[in-house]
Amino acid sequence: MLLIKNIGVLQTPVGKSSLCGSKQAQNLKLTNAAIAIENGKISAIYKDGELPIITNDVHVIDAGNCLVTPGLVDCHTHLVFGGWRHNEIPLKLRGATYLDILRAGGGILDTVRHTREMSEDELYNKSKGFIDEMLAGGVTTVESKSGYGLNLDNELKQLRVNKRLNESTPMDVVSTFLGAHAIPPEYQGKPDEYIDYLCDVVLPEVKRQNLAVFCDVFCEDSVFDVEQSRKMLLKGQKLGLKSKIHADEIEAIGGAVLAGELGAISAEHLIATNEQGIDSMAKGGVTAALLPATSFYLNKTYAPAREMINKGIPVAIASDFNPGSCPSLNLQFAINLGYLKYRMLPEEILTATTLNAACAIDRGETIGSIEVGKQADLVIWNAPNFEMICYRFGSNQVKTVIKKGEIIQ
Amino acid sequence: MLLIKNIGVLQTPVGKSSLCGSKQAQNLKLTNAAIAIENGKISAIYKDGELPIITNDVHVIDAGNCLVTPGLVDCHTHLVFGGWRHNEIPLKLRGATYLDILRAGGGILDTVRHTREMSEDELYNKSKGFIDEMLAGGVTTVESKSGYGLNLDNELKQLRVNKRLNESTPMDVVSTFLGAHAIPPEYQGKPDEYIDYLCDVVLPEVKRQNLAVFCDVFCEDSVFDVEQSRKMLLKGQKLGLKSKIHADEIEAIGGAVLAGELGAISAEHLIATNEQGIDSMAKGGVTAALLPATSFYLNKTYAPAREMINKGIPVAIASDFNPGSCPSLNLQFAINLGYLKYRMLPEEILTATTLNAACAIDRGETIGSIEVGKQADLVIWNAPNFEMICYRFGSNQVKTVIKKGEIIQ
Repeated sequence: MLLIKNIGVLQTPVGKSSLCGSKQAQNLKLTNAAIAIENGKISAIYKDGELPIITNDVHVIDAGNCLVTPGLVDCHTHLVFGGWRHNEIPLKLRGATYLDILRAGGGILDTVRHTREMSEDELYNKSKGFIDEMLAGGVTTVESKSGYGLNLDNELKQLRVNKRLNESTPMDVVSTFLGAHAIPPEYQGKPDEYIDYLCDVVLPEVKRQNLAVFCDVFCEDSVFDVEQSRKMLLKGQKLGLKSKIHADEIEAIGGAVLAGELGAISAEHLIATNEQGIDSMAKGGVTAALLPATSFYLNKTYAPAREMINKGIPVAIASDFNPGSCPSLNLQFAINLGYLKYRMLPEEILTATTLNAACAIDRGETIGSIEVGKQADLVIWNAPNFEMICYRFGSNQVKTVIKKGEIIQ
Repeated sequence: MLLIKNIGVLQTPVGKSSLCGSKQAQNLKLTNAAIAIENGKISAIYKDGELPIITNDVHVIDAGNCLVTPGLVDCHTHLVFGGWRHNEIPLKLRGATYLDILRAGGGILDTVRHTREMSEDELYNKSKGFIDEMLAGGVTTVESKSGYGLNLDNELKQLRVNKRLNESTPMDVVSTFLGAHAIPPEYQGKPDEYIDYLCDVVLPEVKRQNLAVFCDVFCEDSVFDVEQSRKMLLKGQKLGLKSKIHADEIEAIGGAVLAGELGAISAEHLIATNEQGIDSMAKGGVTAALLPATSFYLNKTYAPAREMINKGIPVAIASDFNPGSCPSLNLQFAINLGYLKYRMLPEEILTATTLNAACAIDRGETIGSIEVGKQADLVIWNAPNFEMICYRFGSNQVKTVIKKGEIIQ
């Protein structure tokens, strides 16, 4: 047995499914607490100085009167990619638009080119570095999307890297197929044909090899429209892949509405969403995965988090780590933005980066909160409370990371 | 001799005094370079694969084809303080203003109370942790202001901590007296009397004990007006302390104009400055120390960096680390903001965080650039170029820190 004792504050959302509306702010807070762990799971929780009998075979960790929370869950990333896009900086500062850069062969097509050029091992080694840094930052489960391969071989390559990362590191890596991330050079001007290719050729093979649990699509003006997105996601559902959707990032063309109609597990971005989209998500039980660091990096407005919470939508916050619109894997910084830009309460932000994020990747039954029976994914923080995590930006405040009952940092 | 070889790109501003106007963007870039160090100073610089004869007594570091820059200089911090202010978060989210919090005994007075309560050793130990983290982030010289003691004993206590940090850590800590940071409870409503006390009692003792090299003042509406600020700074000059000034942060009441008139070495913040202030600074040879992370944390606008550069003012960028308006000591994040919010060129930002920052603390002769004869304060980065440092936010990209020729990280 592992026993974490002398926990100043144990703070966690409570429940096995998304917490919506007013409940998002509900956290259980225990003082002078302790957590017992057996077989990688939480076996008992103590408060107010209570402790079990400590026999010789109990390994004890002293939390030093610090804060303990569930391990963080990053429910939206694109962490397997070739190259970077820092060379676009001088162009952007001279006023080049996204389309200028894309037309010059840059932008996402640059990342696709570099991802295709890299071997699976090279991609694995690069991504492994990111996983290590995320773990050190308190993230114990991460979602990872494909979408820089954009053809059969290279989408499968990206997804195999997800699988290897999941198997070879302490991180739980949850894999999402996002073949419909952009229109590849081979299908320029033919988005319908590309969607057919994904539905008829790529996705069935992804399913056959069991390389993804979710199917995602970038539903956006000039990318995939609502009907193309619907076709892609329904094909995924038919094959047993639950739906996620990049919706209403730049324009509200109907992505969030579609999310609600299809009962998607999550809609993501939502910077530009409107009342119709919010109502549909609320009705469809969709979790909103918000990505504030992308708004920050692109100097955009921030998604209407409060309106969604008020309408009873469970809100999650994720990093959106990717080389184009958010070259940061720092989920603690997204937490800071949750406070500073969304003006969410610390309790709401903890729920958004643990339980609701777990629900956005269909893991609410096993992770995302500190409850007896759940996986023992925990963070001990160099901080007295979660307010401090929201407030001190730019410093990694993690003290110890525990994954499935093992100390990994 | 220490030899750093296999430097992919050596990038540095050039010169021993501030680089102004169009020159701020001038960086020397050498490829396949090497740096020789003797007695803590740079003794030779090589490029294009050239190398000295490597005898047995030469200690060689391989830079792994990465970027090498001068060590970063953080020219504006308040790093010695008691307490934190995270407990203000719920109040702020409920709409409490700065003045509401101050009237309830919070805000800067809360920090003053905690700083007074802490012993010198407690303050030293806390600050030492910050210094270690700054060094790990590539900062090799830091300015540290007093200003949370606000009486003789406690201002001296803060300044003694600066001195101990300077003597006991690899960091060069440059000490600034900022007794005129706020009006202490004992002098509420009597700012003139407090300035007299500082000029007649505190500053002479600071000088006698040689605990500061600069005198600073918070010139701002509801804090110290222009005439009080002038009196304070002139007293400092009379005693041999060069002038720095917190100017035009919230309102342009004349602080930047005063900086130019008095030939201050730097004016700091400048979010609200105007043409008159910029003209005066340009005429007076004042370096502008800009603090973008404070604008970020307070959701304010950003200082007009481009206008200042266009007028020939040397622009520096600093962290402003303090528990109230900027609880971040991460100068790399301020670099990211220099690109994202000031829209400065990577070369301008490197100058702003090395040579111009050195000039803002009167160290331009000895640090801030990679030149033969200068102190060997260097950073080897896990990056191919400085664009990458501007672009990837939220990750510490430092590989190795060299201070006075010694590897410290």
